[in-house]
Amino acid sequence: MARLAVWRGLLGAAGLLLALEGVFRYWRRRRPVREALFFPVQLTCTEELLSPGLRCCCPLPHTDSALLRLMRRLLGARSSLELCLFTFSSPPLARAVLLLHRRGVPVRVITDSDYMAASGSQIGALRREGIVVRHSQTSGFMHHKFAVIDKTILITGSMNWTMQAIQVNRENILITDDRACVTAYLEEFERLWEEYDPSTYDFFPEGLEATK
Amino acid sequence: MARLAVWRGLLGAAGLLLALEGVFRYWRRRRPVREALFFPVQLTCTEELLSPGLRCCCPLPHTDSALLRLMRRLLGARSSLELCLFTFSSPPLARAVLLLHRRGVPVRVITDSDYMAASGSQIGALRREGIVVRHSQTSGFMHHKFAVIDKTILITGSMNWTMQAIQVNRENILITDDRACVTAYLEEFERLWEEYDPSTYDFFPEGLEATK
Repeated sequence: MARLAVWRGLLGAAGLLLALEGVFRYWRRRRPVREALFFPVQLTCTEELLSPGLRCCCPLPHTDSALLRLMRRLLGARSSLELCLFTFSSPPLARAVLLLHRRGVPVRVITDSDYMAASGSQIGALRREGIVVRHSQTSGFMHHKFAVIDKTILITGSMNWTMQAIQVNRENILITDDRACVTAYLEEFERLWEEYDPSTYDFFPEGLEATK
Repeated sequence: MARLAVWRGLLGAAGLLLALEGVFRYWRRRRPVREALFFPVQLTCTEELLSPGLRCCCPLPHTDSALLRLMRRLLGARSSLELCLFTFSSPPLARAVLLLHRRGVPVRVITDSDYMAASGSQIGALRREGIVVRHSQTSGFMHHKFAVIDKTILITGSMNWTMQAIQVNRENILITDDRACVTAYLEEFERLWEEYDPSTYDFFPEGLEATK
């Protein structure tokens, strides 16, 4: 009889813990995401984030940084990642995106036609792994620098995804899950995705018409 | 007696209208500001916004645009304007800032040392009118492109304040009055304002030490 009471108590406690965890998860999900990141930052080790379980002994500091917080947000993607980036040459950020792609998260990339082949660009590496990249073809820069995670979190700001920007420049990134903001940027992504569809490329853009 | 009743009625109606206007103003102030602007836009007439009361007959379209919405936000400043801009060469945006300055709104500007003297830069025009401008002096770009209005509204994004960005590039601007976001960007502004104080300039920055 006493043993039954103990079992009942244990089961009750387990149930209570599960319920509390559920409440905590719900609260975390409902708490609005508002994060501002500022750069430059000193380069810190990103290996442990990119290789979970690894205990890295490299000489870089193993402290938190704005870059790590950005990477942690990216690596939190579960169902989709949209990237709309003027320049993308940061190796740790490219490794984070490739990791998501290998995990099966659908990744789409829009970039600028002039800068995608610049020295150090990671766009080729993404394409080689099978990530679909579309690019501008008209004059003027595709100058956006934003990402949308799981269609619910927007990452936007002044920062191009380059090591110069991360380690040297004064830059900002705003992270928000505000519905109105996320929707507006997703719509802009879809507009450009359609516009830059290679099946509709015009190989004689304006200004070159006369040479046709 | 009848005339008294009419006057009473009129006074009552006026009081009711005033009360309703107060409620409307309060509701407008409490409604969260979340606006996303996308560029490029076709150039539209900005004269009527910059010269209230003017009926402009110029050949430009007199329609609304993302540029006008941005200018309207700026011109709504009543108590302060902080600008933290990598490049600033757009004449209509500079005119809006000068208008605020002439109205007595305190304006502070932070910019990049390399680009402030570039062709078409409006920084000289702002300084000539008495607006205090501070600039970076270290290597690396002061690459921010944000503004804070009345310490309550943040304007941030990918867009430099140039005509190329407004009329040709793909760009975004996010406008929000989210308290956490505004505070974070204001703190970054104050950090840079102190750091770029000319009384603490180091005229032999790193890299030039050896030539001392």
